[in-house]
Amino acid sequence: MRIIKTTICGTDLHIMKGDVPTCKPGTVLGHEGVGVVEQIGAAVTTFKPGDHVLISCISSCGKCEYCRKGAYSHCTTGGWILGNKIDGTQAEFVRIPHADTSLYAIPEGYDEEALVMLSDIFPTGFECGVLNGKVEPGATVAIVGSGPIGLASLLTALFYSPAQVIMIDMDQNRLDTAIRLGATAMVNSRQVDPVARVMELTGGKGVDCAIEAVGTPATFELCQELVAVGGVVANVGVHGAKADLHLEKLWDRNISVTTRLVDTVSTPMLMKTVGAKKLNPQLLITHRFRLDQGMDAYETFGHAAQNQALKVIIEP
Amino acid sequence: MRIIKTTICGTDLHIMKGDVPTCKPGTVLGHEGVGVVEQIGAAVTTFKPGDHVLISCISSCGKCEYCRKGAYSHCTTGGWILGNKIDGTQAEFVRIPHADTSLYAIPEGYDEEALVMLSDIFPTGFECGVLNGKVEPGATVAIVGSGPIGLASLLTALFYSPAQVIMIDMDQNRLDTAIRLGATAMVNSRQVDPVARVMELTGGKGVDCAIEAVGTPATFELCQELVAVGGVVANVGVHGAKADLHLEKLWDRNISVTTRLVDTVSTPMLMKTVGAKKLNPQLLITHRFRLDQGMDAYETFGHAAQNQALKVIIEP
Amino acid sequence: MRIIKTTICGTDLHIMKGDVPTCKPGTVLGHEGVGVVEQIGAAVTTFKPGDHVLISCISSCGKCEYCRKGAYSHCTTGGWILGNKIDGTQAEFVRIPHADTSLYAIPEGYDEEALVMLSDIFPTGFECGVLNGKVEPGATVAIVGSGPIGLASLLTALFYSPAQVIMIDMDQNRLDTAIRLGATAMVNSRQVDPVARVMELTGGKGVDCAIEAVGTPATFELCQELVAVGGVVANVGVHGAKADLHLEKLWDRNISVTTRLVDTVSTPMLMKTVGAKKLNPQLLITHRFRLDQGMDAYETFGHAAQNQALKVIIEP
Amino acid sequence: MRIIKTTICGTDLHIMKGDVPTCKPGTVLGHEGVGVVEQIGAAVTTFKPGDHVLISCISSCGKCEYCRKGAYSHCTTGGWILGNKIDGTQAEFVRIPHADTSLYAIPEGYDEEALVMLSDIFPTGFECGVLNGKVEPGATVAIVGSGPIGLASLLTALFYSPAQVIMIDMDQNRLDTAIRLGATAMVNSRQVDPVARVMELTGGKGVDCAIEAVGTPATFELCQELVAVGGVVANVGVHGAKADLHLEKLWDRNISVTTRLVDTVSTPMLMKTVGAKKLNPQLLITHRFRLDQGMDAYETFGHAAQNQALKVIIEP
Repeated sequence: MRIIKTTICGTDLHIMKGDVPTCKPGTVLGHEGVGVVEQIGAAVTTFKPGDHVLISCISSCGKCEYCRKGAYSHCTTGGWILGNKIDGTQAEFVRIPHADTSLYAIPEGYDEEALVMLSDIFPTGFECGVLNGKVEPGATVAIVGSGPIGLASLLTALFYSPAQVIMIDMDQNRLDTAIRLGATAMVNSRQVDPVARVMELTGGKGVDCAIEAVGTPATFELCQELVAVGGVVANVGVHGAKADLHLEKLWDRNISVTTRLVDTVSTPMLMKTVGAKKLNPQLLITHRFRLDQGMDAYETFGHAAQNQALKVIIEP
Repeated sequence: MRIIKTTICGTDLHIMKGDVPTCKPGTVLGHEGVGVVEQIGAAVTTFKPGDHVLISCISSCGKCEYCRKGAYSHCTTGGWILGNKIDGTQAEFVRIPHADTSLYAIPEGYDEEALVMLSDIFPTGFECGVLNGKVEPGATVAIVGSGPIGLASLLTALFYSPAQVIMIDMDQNRLDTAIRLGATAMVNSRQVDPVARVMELTGGKGVDCAIEAVGTPATFELCQELVAVGGVVANVGVHGAKADLHLEKLWDRNISVTTRLVDTVSTPMLMKTVGAKKLNPQLLITHRFRLDQGMDAYETFGHAAQNQALKVIIEP
Repeated sequence: MRIIKTTICGTDLHIMKGDVPTCKPGTVLGHEGVGVVEQIGAAVTTFKPGDHVLISCISSCGKCEYCRKGAYSHCTTGGWILGNKIDGTQAEFVRIPHADTSLYAIPEGYDEEALVMLSDIFPTGFECGVLNGKVEPGATVAIVGSGPIGLASLLTALFYSPAQVIMIDMDQNRLDTAIRLGATAMVNSRQVDPVARVMELTGGKGVDCAIEAVGTPATFELCQELVAVGGVVANVGVHGAKADLHLEKLWDRNISVTTRLVDTVSTPMLMKTVGAKKLNPQLLITHRFRLDQGMDAYETFGHAAQNQALKVIIEP
Repeated sequence: MRIIKTTICGTDLHIMKGDVPTCKPGTVLGHEGVGVVEQIGAAVTTFKPGDHVLISCISSCGKCEYCRKGAYSHCTTGGWILGNKIDGTQAEFVRIPHADTSLYAIPEGYDEEALVMLSDIFPTGFECGVLNGKVEPGATVAIVGSGPIGLASLLTALFYSPAQVIMIDMDQNRLDTAIRLGATAMVNSRQVDPVARVMELTGGKGVDCAIEAVGTPATFELCQELVAVGGVVANVGVHGAKADLHLEKLWDRNISVTTRLVDTVSTPMLMKTVGAKKLNPQLLITHRFRLDQGMDAYETFGHAAQNQALKVIIEP
């Protein structure tokens, strides 16, 4: 495929720091993007050269036990391999294995830049946060972390008309963005005790759904304090360390804690919501670069707070 | 209870015509309304005189096998009895049996007139139409019948961000209202073949959810022609006659047909959506009368099309 | 593939009578069986010559919108094509399209004859009858039709420990078989009014799940009379004509009617239950023939009642 | 109520040790039993003197927000209060608050001694372990802890025909009992590494459902090592301390961890399975005492391992 547009993910920064041992030095990074099919392998039946397609961050064979159950992230010959175990999308061209079941045709009239956001962050926020969190009309939701993934969780939580979506972060700019995108309240946890504030906002009950979109023990433990009886702590963050689970407080609270690596099984549904203008993923795009400005793009995204950056678009 | 506001339901018109044999002549009609608790029976523990409450059209004992499963409409000593087997709400005062589990406290700051719409039509459209119909983000929905119940189905279908909600009716005024309330398309079936039009709008697939909100064999059979593979025909209408089920076409289509008498089990959730301004039930109120103008109210509502009437409010 | 064992389905008899226009004269019939992979196409990655496999009656590409949702029966290039639109399994050799996603490897130690029953009738009874019917512990189930599909529904209903499974048929021999296989009651509808008897057995409530396993208007309408408030009528039968749906009685009963062409998405689960001896599909095998006795096999199966035949095994 | 039969729960032992601060000295213990209604309060409409009833360990008002959602354990005026905040069932007589919704009529022909097991341990094992654990046909299950609650989880897991139920304990006698009751494998974790053994039994995948029925950090952490991709750790045990949650290993495994205080919402279903002989709760009764032998009963149950005791029956 020839890449039309791609972007940088927080995970790419982790790889740069050496946190992802499966990714060998020299690998082309990037697992997001839209492109044009240049050439197809013998087994490909769904696409032909010239087709415009959305690239899923998860490669899925469509055949193995996991793919047949919709758990594409655990595909025995796929999963998250792009820009990790094989060369990725931050390039002019990329080879996509299992193309028939890892690419999505872009219908006429879609904003292709917006769709770049559907390679990873929107299905991640939606599947790991909102679907696992069982957000429903009238529900109360807290999202801990107001970065791109937290904001993607917010925008897709709004699909279900919750009564409250409370965003928690330490970056005031990101919180302001969240309010602009539809959050009903924000808590700057540098300034305010988030547990006290959420209890105040929810009549002392806590939230039906607490979405963890940071990936640290502290934020995960915060979610345990926010969740109401019968609620869900939906983990979205990537964790490098164990956390305390306060079973002595939670054993009788009828709660669930869920984890998930995005399967991108919801991509067709998300594309429909974009087509119907129910979701505007481009709201998260803050910067644009050419591929030859790649280092600037990383620099900007790597210091996201200073640059008020959410997602950057890179075009060859 | 002292009634603050009540309304008239299409079912009341059926009773007037003699179609509801369980309702004896001389019964006070009405199964919707908000009021103030005047006096409580010995067994009531949840409410006290002076409390403002929403009256559910379904009386639920909270104890029987059906109530314990959330099927309040089949309560062995309740169900739809108000304004049917016992005197109803179109009066200055009404006695509510099983009060603890058939009334809902109105919190501060709610528009009580709007809440009258939550006694019956909103839970009916939501439970029988939208929940049974499994409406979800990106889905396609057709609602056959654009009267108050069809419009309540529309407004609650929008909770879930469907890609399309197509309203079908023969009354252009009601269709125009539906578009104003958020429907994505309308089909005046006097002028256009609804099956052809829905297929055109859905790429030949039909809709994921077809909601029947009229109650005739013809409209129910239309829904069978509209529903896509894997979809649901969610019946909301009250039927007086059998209909054809085209199993010779549907047996291999992986569809469901659902029926339900509203249980009002969703009333607490709907109240939360009203409180959060996610639902504006007052949009369906078109006329207002005093209780002593009751016959005018029936006259207006009884000729709803001519009067462009949806729901009328009656105040003592 | 080289066929090891195959069988005859009721649908094959319908084809012989000319009821299935998609099946052209001269087509080799048969959509069930186990075999050995003889040769593979270029795109096949999961199987190799010599592998013993179970053939699904449904061919699934694994790539299309329907396959990705588990609705393999609606695969845009597959579905029920074997022994229908293309040559089938009642032969020495058969070509299986979409092999990777339409065959299942047979692990060591499985009874391959038993597995022939998993090509069609067990997933059909299980998916269309038991899963759609939401059978659960303590539930009451009625199965109308005690032929191979009805009995497969019975055996898989027993997975969920229902309190009662009541079999209804006019053939006493098939009813006796059902009791031997675990049904808790039988009703010979030639001799006894099935509605009265089922109401007697269920305290006047009817059954939580009524499974239609015949395919006639009369048996489908019987199911409507048997189903309890809140229950499901799960259609399994193939219908050639419309039926009456008594909405005037059912509109307020909180029931569902479901239809489905088997997707065989449950085949891996069913294989696990066979491996664990929780399911003994061979209980339905009554006769065995060689492929050159094919006409005798059809004769025996075609007059199943006289021959007390359920399923026949045919071996090349 | 006059008590017919009662029993001792592990929680009673915790109270004796002073671990349950809500239970004041002098309180009559016991939250399980069957009895006869002696006298009713003014608000009781479902029962009358002379009725034989099963007592639920959870008192439920049937009216509050939690009871209306089936979360009886969080009833605002009930929950687990019997033998805790108010006098319990280890007595000749007991007062049951919220009687209409906290007692279950015993139909003719039931073994009342068996039903004592349905006051607490069977709904606990079933709701917190099996239902939360989503046990299904062909699934693999590990149950850590083979005491009464673990065995109740086992017997109710068998409702769903799992392929494997592996019991893990350090008491060989209890493991032998588990095998006799239908477990497919046992692991004595004094002698064998349970993780290695479970991986061996499940082809290296782990189990679909790991039920924690002990209540210690070590056993909860063991469950995290046993659970397969896509599986559930269903906590049943009562925990007095936090545990480590290994998010660094689990964040991408698509798993859930669930907690629950039994709601006894499944009691009517469990009674049906007992009536249908699908569940034989009396299999867990090992000893019988008269009420005046109460201290012997506690002595026996308090040293369960030495006495090979599971559940004891106490009769006034």
